[in-house]
Amino acid sequence: ANQILSGYGTTIFTVMSALAQEHGAVNLGQGFPDWEGPEEVRRIAAEGLMNGYNQYPPMAGIPELRRAVAAHDRRFYGMDVDPMREVIITSGATEALAASLLGLLNPGDEVVLIEPLYDSYLPIVQLAGAVPRLVRVEPPLWDLPRAALAAAFGPKTRMLVMNSPMNPTGKVFSDDDLAFIADLVKAHDAIAVCDEVHEHLVFDGRRHTPLMTLPGMRERTVRIGSAGKTFSLTGWKVGYLVADAPIAAALGRAHQFLTFTTPPNLQQAVAHGLSMDRSYFDDLAAGLAAKRDLLSDGLRRVGFDVLKADGTYFIGADIRPLVGEMDDAEFSRRLTIEAGVTCLPFSAFYQAGDIRNFVRFCFCKRESVLEEAVGRLERFF
Amino acid sequence: ANQILSGYGTTIFTVMSALAQEHGAVNLGQGFPDWEGPEEVRRIAAEGLMNGYNQYPPMAGIPELRRAVAAHDRRFYGMDVDPMREVIITSGATEALAASLLGLLNPGDEVVLIEPLYDSYLPIVQLAGAVPRLVRVEPPLWDLPRAALAAAFGPKTRMLVMNSPMNPTGKVFSDDDLAFIADLVKAHDAIAVCDEVHEHLVFDGRRHTPLMTLPGMRERTVRIGSAGKTFSLTGWKVGYLVADAPIAAALGRAHQFLTFTTPPNLQQAVAHGLSMDRSYFDDLAAGLAAKRDLLSDGLRRVGFDVLKADGTYFIGADIRPLVGEMDDAEFSRRLTIEAGVTCLPFSAFYQAGDIRNFVRFCFCKRESVLEEAVGRLERFF
Ligand SMILES: CSCCC(=O)C(=O)O
Ligand SMILES: CSCCC(=O)C(=O)O
Repeated sequence: ANQILSGYGTTIFTVMSALAQEHGAVNLGQGFPDWEGPEEVRRIAAEGLMNGYNQYPPMAGIPELRRAVAAHDRRFYGMDVDPMREVIITSGATEALAASLLGLLNPGDEVVLIEPLYDSYLPIVQLAGAVPRLVRVEPPLWDLPRAALAAAFGPKTRMLVMNSPMNPTGKVFSDDDLAFIADLVKAHDAIAVCDEVHEHLVFDGRRHTPLMTLPGMRERTVRIGSAGKTFSLTGWKVGYLVADAPIAAALGRAHQFLTFTTPPNLQQAVAHGLSMDRSYFDDLAAGLAAKRDLLSDGLRRVGFDVLKADGTYFIGADIRPLVGEMDDAEFSRRLTIEAGVTCLPFSAFYQAGDIRNFVRFCFCKRESVLEEAVGRLERFF
Repeated sequence: ANQILSGYGTTIFTVMSALAQEHGAVNLGQGFPDWEGPEEVRRIAAEGLMNGYNQYPPMAGIPELRRAVAAHDRRFYGMDVDPMREVIITSGATEALAASLLGLLNPGDEVVLIEPLYDSYLPIVQLAGAVPRLVRVEPPLWDLPRAALAAAFGPKTRMLVMNSPMNPTGKVFSDDDLAFIADLVKAHDAIAVCDEVHEHLVFDGRRHTPLMTLPGMRERTVRIGSAGKTFSLTGWKVGYLVADAPIAAALGRAHQFLTFTTPPNLQQAVAHGLSMDRSYFDDLAAGLAAKRDLLSDGLRRVGFDVLKADGTYFIGADIRPLVGEMDDAEFSRRLTIEAGVTCLPFSAFYQAGDIRNFVRFCFCKRESVLEEAVGRLERFF
């Protein structure tokens, strides 16, 4: 077995979803909604299956979807994207990330990553033979560690990988933070790979700003989006990459050998989704913000110290007010088994295990489910 | 850009399909049927989209499909497969291959590959830092080169990659060949990765024999299948891996970071497909065999020397009787532009460019399309 990959266990999302199921727990672990995405989008996908959208689409995606991604990026971010040369459709954002890292990195390249991080980043960086340089967003302030970030860049830095809105903290990086990051990337002639799967899950009137829209970043950024997250259809595994044409060509070289392409009926439906009225996107965010409030309030009543989620599906919670110092993975297991509510340990999002007192709860669930979870927690504590 | 991947161009399938479209050619290049897969299978997939099959399924695939793969392998091959520990569902056979190579290889491992080969094998082997050892099936006999194959194995051999029924030759390796291969793999304590996407595209009463069913191979083989090929739904990108549990665990470590999972509605539908009556599979093969005969006869009338296709979607054809010595890539381009029929050059399936006189035609098209193609060729030559 490959020694890098076999050093990692089964992904925490799978482990905890299985544990939740085994114990009949309310699963606020793995991030997926428990409602269906827009019916009109699903209907187009269903019709495609009955009407000739069943054979290989073009490797980089069907033109309708590539055009829809470009139009989306113009509408929301004022970007000017060439659909046929600067957009690649992938089998989910996970594949988009793998294609970005494997397509752009060479052995020995250094990659700056900001912890907490999604669990595929580090193994794929290492699989590429590249050298990770980790900096941390951490308690109690959860601020971008500017000095450490600047120190992590060096002459061998080839890439920065970042995630905003950020999983699992719910943090949305400020415009100042983005400018600071962009300056470092430019100063070191690096590429930024921006995992922006939560681009439309941003609350309270805030807006997502792609790093790619900052001055000088257009030609050195890979922007990754996810139809799964934007349309509450996480199973569809339709992601997209936006990058300057020469970078996109390199990404295509990886994509064509990782999955080659993505089901055309789903692509057709996502093209429609991306062109829906602004109200769809506003309603998605408003609905999620209300769920966030419901769960935040509940967790606070139970006794957690709750982080403010400006975006994502996720609330971070400090467990110390309830249980004192306790291993977060152990806490998550016991909460699943004993309280019947599943959360995820923050430590799963850090390489070294010394962030130990925080867990993540998903609020992308129906109100009744969130209420049931809070009820179970209230009875347990 | 990654230096290995950027050394490869855009995949030949994409290049030639684009050229076909540009010139209004009959596209007998890229291998996909021009009919729809079974309506009952597509209907289940469509219903799933309207009925709750839209969120992340389990990372390794939905239990129904894993069980259906195990039952399929029992029914067709007498294999005894543990669905939950020995089957992984992937986003197409291309991802299955990438997961197999990236999940099992370490830098410096040697990998024996048999040319002609599908165009993702070599770049992924190299991306893994492994060292390819190529042997060739070649004209005029297209036999397994036993002496060369034995010589390619050595103390560092970790893996053999093979494809039977074989693209683009249409060759089905004989039981003797398989036994010879199995003995080498066992003698060198290696693993065989068997691309068996054409397992049900085998003609004239022959049957596909998985290398995995040979004595001693069960615990050292990865078997790769493709719903796209078996159900004429190439766009669905549903593949599967069957391997002994410890190997499957290593494959899962790669799969979880390459795509994580595959759309659940498609998985549900493929589970149904795999359990259809034997007659479905027999009819598929019989229908393709009739198309093969139609196109073979036509190509022979036009003047090609035609290889006998015992399996796959593909006929190999020697161009020399028609045009003498000519570069096969140049021939394929000119045939597209001047005759309005697209084929693929065999040289795209070999690393070194000295197999130069053969092209591949797909027969997985409606009769009228095959007749139109032959008609155009007859008028041209
Ligand atoms: C691919 S499963 C994980 C989904 C997700 O983004 C999360 O739960 O963090
Ligand atoms: C992924 S496109 C190539 C399909 C195929 O198997 C072929 O044409 O050989």
